[in-house]
Amino acid sequence: MNYLGIDLGGTNVAVGIVSEEGEIIARGHRPCPRGNEPVAAAIVAACREAVESAGLQMQDICGAGLGSPGTVDSKRGMVVSAYNLQLDQAPLCQMISEELGIPVKIGNDANVAAYGEYLFGAGRESKNMIAITLGTGLGCGIVIDGALYEGFNGFAGEAGHMCLVPKGRVCTCGREGCFETYASATGLLLSARMAAKKHPECALNHVTGGDLDALDGKLFFRALETGDAVTQQVFASYVDLLALGLGSIVNLLQPEVICVGGGIAGAGEVLLAPLREALRAYDFAGNTERRVEVLGAMLGNDAGIIGAAMISR
Amino acid sequence: MNYLGIDLGGTNVAVGIVSEEGEIIARGHRPCPRGNEPVAAAIVAACREAVESAGLQMQDICGAGLGSPGTVDSKRGMVVSAYNLQLDQAPLCQMISEELGIPVKIGNDANVAAYGEYLFGAGRESKNMIAITLGTGLGCGIVIDGALYEGFNGFAGEAGHMCLVPKGRVCTCGREGCFETYASATGLLLSARMAAKKHPECALNHVTGGDLDALDGKLFFRALETGDAVTQQVFASYVDLLALGLGSIVNLLQPEVICVGGGIAGAGEVLLAPLREALRAYDFAGNTERRVEVLGAMLGNDAGIIGAAMISR
Repeated sequence: MNYLGIDLGGTNVAVGIVSEEGEIIARGHRPCPRGNEPVAAAIVAACREAVESAGLQMQDICGAGLGSPGTVDSKRGMVVSAYNLQLDQAPLCQMISEELGIPVKIGNDANVAAYGEYLFGAGRESKNMIAITLGTGLGCGIVIDGALYEGFNGFAGEAGHMCLVPKGRVCTCGREGCFETYASATGLLLSARMAAKKHPECALNHVTGGDLDALDGKLFFRALETGDAVTQQVFASYVDLLALGLGSIVNLLQPEVICVGGGIAGAGEVLLAPLREALRAYDFAGNTERRVEVLGAMLGNDAGIIGAAMISR
Repeated sequence: MNYLGIDLGGTNVAVGIVSEEGEIIARGHRPCPRGNEPVAAAIVAACREAVESAGLQMQDICGAGLGSPGTVDSKRGMVVSAYNLQLDQAPLCQMISEELGIPVKIGNDANVAAYGEYLFGAGRESKNMIAITLGTGLGCGIVIDGALYEGFNGFAGEAGHMCLVPKGRVCTCGREGCFETYASATGLLLSARMAAKKHPECALNHVTGGDLDALDGKLFFRALETGDAVTQQVFASYVDLLALGLGSIVNLLQPEVICVGGGIAGAGEVLLAPLREALRAYDFAGNTERRVEVLGAMLGNDAGIIGAAMISR
């Protein structure tokens, strides 16, 4: 049994044919255009490419799943709105299904990536899992008892907009002090730039050759490796705030696994080891043997394709 | 079909015979002793009293459910520990079941009370509900898709120990800044006493005749009614912090209903109306039509008995 998984992103439509065992056996790609019809057409083209490249026919595919950014109504099969892609009330499931002749389901991109990690990655032996993605924002997907949890209105998992610092940094959502303004990759780099401006001698200025606009995650961790005190202080504050937010999630839900992905998570144990320590202090069950496991994401960019394919089962 | 619901509290064992429709048709009581055997014996006696008082025989009862304070292992039917009652590794389900000859299930007291409100009270038309209890601490129970959610290790729903104010008030759990140190009834009264000491002229000192140890929820709301500025400021800060914590829960889980119970919730709309306003500002879906409903608990002290009975179904 094979399924099409579609990862709709700001720049690319990435499609994979995914086996029942979660393996991607062929791929298709298209640059992502803007607007309802062009996006649907690009998805259809990428799907056909993947099927051809696998040497299959569309009737060999059981169904397709689509992970989309923006506000998604999975029950009605629609993207309600995704500003970046200029999608507005887009009935993508129906549009794609009519072209391909197979059933199509849709989910939020962070949710379907979490579902992929749950089934075949970091969460594959767990009952409940929270996946967070530390990227431009802070994405969050919740899997409870084997199913994606979306809340009664589809808005669950907005951990990035939990208010952690009242009257803190202004968020893109218009609120203040949201978790993601500190704990996303963007938040870490903002803290680092602020510290680097105050401390011209610090390693953050060395690794960027003085051009702080060039600072990215890789350069940040290079500065951290030097043992520079300013960078270490920025990182310690970052880890503590990440643990503070995750601690609230853990005290509420006690998932068996927290899966940490996104650019910053590429640092691996450099991030995860101090994060586990810090989280344990916030976790009400931190001193018990049955406490949450914090694991790095395992599927990388393929989590979205694999998870999307699996929601179509 | 009738069920026994047992609410195990610090001073009393309260038992009810509960119909399938959630009505209590007879009751039994015993003072609550200390220690495994004495507690089990008191429960058995209160159950027999309730059955007799209903004019029934034990074989007319389908099963019993027990809501217990402390750390409960519902799978093994045990109270792992409840310091107040000096329960330690107490296999209460088995002990009671052997005496009464009916199956017995157990759950955390906040959880079973939430389940009662979900089935027959504030949550009875909802899919997902969070119940919080503003009392000595801040209790929390989570119902997802009609079932109590306990987390993989049984520790879920410890919303009271979400850290809201880093380096804030010291909590009974040993951590700092826990939600309940501010948002419980205890937290409100602590804030009120601190303000009253700073402002000898304020209404909080009038209503207590200058004896701040006598301040309780009722007297606090009497002072609030006078329009006193100091009391209003204390209350506004209380409501905002309560909304901050609930906002994080809502952004994560988007329950259809938040049910607010406990002593402080007795104030009704005086509390709930400003709480709804404040929560809306923190809620990522606050500007949508499908946002969480904040409702007062409806079953009062009977929620524990009714919910406990229902977990035995």
